[in-house]
Amino acid sequence: MPESPIRKLVPYAEKAQASGKKVYHLNIGQPDIETPISAREAIAVSNVEVLAYSHSAGTESLRRGFIDYYRKNGIDLDLADIVVSTGGSEALFFAFSSIMDQGDEVIIPEPFYANYNSFAVSSGVKVVPVVSDIKTGFALPPIEDFEKLITPKTKAIMICNPGNPTGYLYSEEELEKLKHIVLKHDLFLIADEVYREFTYDGRKHHSVLRMKGLEQNAIMVDSVSKRYSMCGARIGMLVSKNKEVMMSALKFAQARLSPPTYAQIASEAALKTPDSYFKEVNEEYLQRRNILVAGLNSIPGVFCPEPKGAFYCVAEFPVDDTEEFAKWMLESFEYNGVTLMIAPAAGFYSNSILGKKQARLAYVLNQDSLKIAIEVLRNALLAYPGAE
Amino acid sequence: MPESPIRKLVPYAEKAQASGKKVYHLNIGQPDIETPISAREAIAVSNVEVLAYSHSAGTESLRRGFIDYYRKNGIDLDLADIVVSTGGSEALFFAFSSIMDQGDEVIIPEPFYANYNSFAVSSGVKVVPVVSDIKTGFALPPIEDFEKLITPKTKAIMICNPGNPTGYLYSEEELEKLKHIVLKHDLFLIADEVYREFTYDGRKHHSVLRMKGLEQNAIMVDSVSKRYSMCGARIGMLVSKNKEVMMSALKFAQARLSPPTYAQIASEAALKTPDSYFKEVNEEYLQRRNILVAGLNSIPGVFCPEPKGAFYCVAEFPVDDTEEFAKWMLESFEYNGVTLMIAPAAGFYSNSILGKKQARLAYVLNQDSLKIAIEVLRNALLAYPGAE
Repeated sequence: MPESPIRKLVPYAEKAQASGKKVYHLNIGQPDIETPISAREAIAVSNVEVLAYSHSAGTESLRRGFIDYYRKNGIDLDLADIVVSTGGSEALFFAFSSIMDQGDEVIIPEPFYANYNSFAVSSGVKVVPVVSDIKTGFALPPIEDFEKLITPKTKAIMICNPGNPTGYLYSEEELEKLKHIVLKHDLFLIADEVYREFTYDGRKHHSVLRMKGLEQNAIMVDSVSKRYSMCGARIGMLVSKNKEVMMSALKFAQARLSPPTYAQIASEAALKTPDSYFKEVNEEYLQRRNILVAGLNSIPGVFCPEPKGAFYCVAEFPVDDTEEFAKWMLESFEYNGVTLMIAPAAGFYSNSILGKKQARLAYVLNQDSLKIAIEVLRNALLAYPGAE
Repeated sequence: MPESPIRKLVPYAEKAQASGKKVYHLNIGQPDIETPISAREAIAVSNVEVLAYSHSAGTESLRRGFIDYYRKNGIDLDLADIVVSTGGSEALFFAFSSIMDQGDEVIIPEPFYANYNSFAVSSGVKVVPVVSDIKTGFALPPIEDFEKLITPKTKAIMICNPGNPTGYLYSEEELEKLKHIVLKHDLFLIADEVYREFTYDGRKHHSVLRMKGLEQNAIMVDSVSKRYSMCGARIGMLVSKNKEVMMSALKFAQARLSPPTYAQIASEAALKTPDSYFKEVNEEYLQRRNILVAGLNSIPGVFCPEPKGAFYCVAEFPVDDTEEFAKWMLESFEYNGVTLMIAPAAGFYSNSILGKKQARLAYVLNQDSLKIAIEVLRNALLAYPGAE
């Protein structure tokens, strides 16, 4: 498995920190938001006498909790439509393994979450990228571009909605186009919807599970990690109305016995989080997005389309290679004792040339830190010998 | 992925229970022993504000805790020699994926833990079985039998020690033989040692990690699940002194981001469990083993070799097909309102014919229940139309 450009930077970030610089991490999707108190209290009082395996598909009470949650989102599910996984990561592995054999292909708009490639490698599946353009804010590529890539080996199209790394939120019309092509070629549409709650400017998220006529072809990957700021729980879900897919996924789930028990207790309690929590969290992310995106676009030569969801953006920088620039910031630059770590976008493209001028920034720092980060970046680009 | 004979029985067990029968579960490895209080208390007071991802290889403090634990077992390790996994299951997946490519082969003495096959399927690896004999108590097969199976595709020999499902504990001499053949052909020796603490009659467990000269070829799979009766934590480890193996395993670990955080807190605290806990637990299992094995051998036509470790035994029954017999007990038999669920051994052999007269029984019930179970079994074999 190849090493990602982000991980290659870690030793440089460690060295920068050791040298006394303050490193602002804009490179990772680990929110700083507090985990809801309901989840933490449930753990405190759990006192499980024998911490036993749960059902391989997750405890029944947690799955019933998810059913209630999805019902509020207009999605009707049965117990058998959900397999609780160890994080969204495992749900992706279940999805790939359940619908594809060695050598099969999945088409994914790029830039895409780098670990999709890792799971594809683990499952022996080939990722076929279709390029989306920063100029359109990473909107869905023309459907003809998908058509051209479909072969007898193609088993699925996969999207991340809202997108990591782009923050792009697909419109209903775009999803209809995907539905059409998927049904025409009898493929699956896999949607990673772990950022479902994070949408801005009054825009609405559309789930593949609500699309009429797509019931047997839609597979959703979900997770409590970002929604409740509990990435460390490692609780995700694979959801589909297709019984054959779910039966196959269950066999993979049985092989690894059970998802983590404590985390299931915490996740079930987290489902009781009041809507006011999300309102506050979303308002905070919105402010952060506005600060970061306006700040980026105020720097000469930088272009950042405005993301409508998640808590990432991908920006273009006036440099040859954002990997070199990121390394230089960590190694050789500071502004008032602060430097930045950003995620070079090369790792989000299958062809690393495409992302060479782009980087992903996550707005998981508080507003004051983001304002400082923008000034650090502005000055870094002024000082960078490789700036264009 | 094929369905295991045990899982096929589950609906029959559910029906038996629904009909009012009491079903004694001798089929599963879920101990009834209480999880140590230290682990449960650590969770109660944890109050993590942001339940974040941990390091992909596990928190440093947990890995340091494991280093101390292994040192007490005569094994010296560095931080980089351990990757914390989501259960022993994931450690096995990491091991297979790190040392083998599609189509490579691993030789495993059978009967073996059915899920080894599942992980092999997931990793595209072929399991090559070498038959061990119930008459020898499932001792190591002659080393010539291994020699005959080695091909250019063979990358590893794998053992479970003490064994699930056999309870067999390998002697130092047997391990030396394995070391010799592994070094001769430059293979890896993978040892699943999750039952390390459960040894009886004064016998000692020998770890592959203590074998001189095997350092670069030894890979250990471990877990807190059975040791501290916390199967639901889902915390395991992959351990090796081979840096290349561990670097590859870390990449797979990074792809799934992090093992579960709460479970790591509980596991770290569990490491402080006093030795007296294990003494009590082992004394309890020893009594149970004695009751179960003596009981089984007192039934005409039943043969059960005495296991020296773990908490399983594999017995031979005077029936054509233990799968049919197990189904019959659940569907059509009861003795004073009680019936049994046992694990047909066919699922532990790659060639299901070999296990047709055998079944695995786990002694995870209390002593009185085991005594009742023996009487139920005695009477079931008297009443079974298919008995020989």
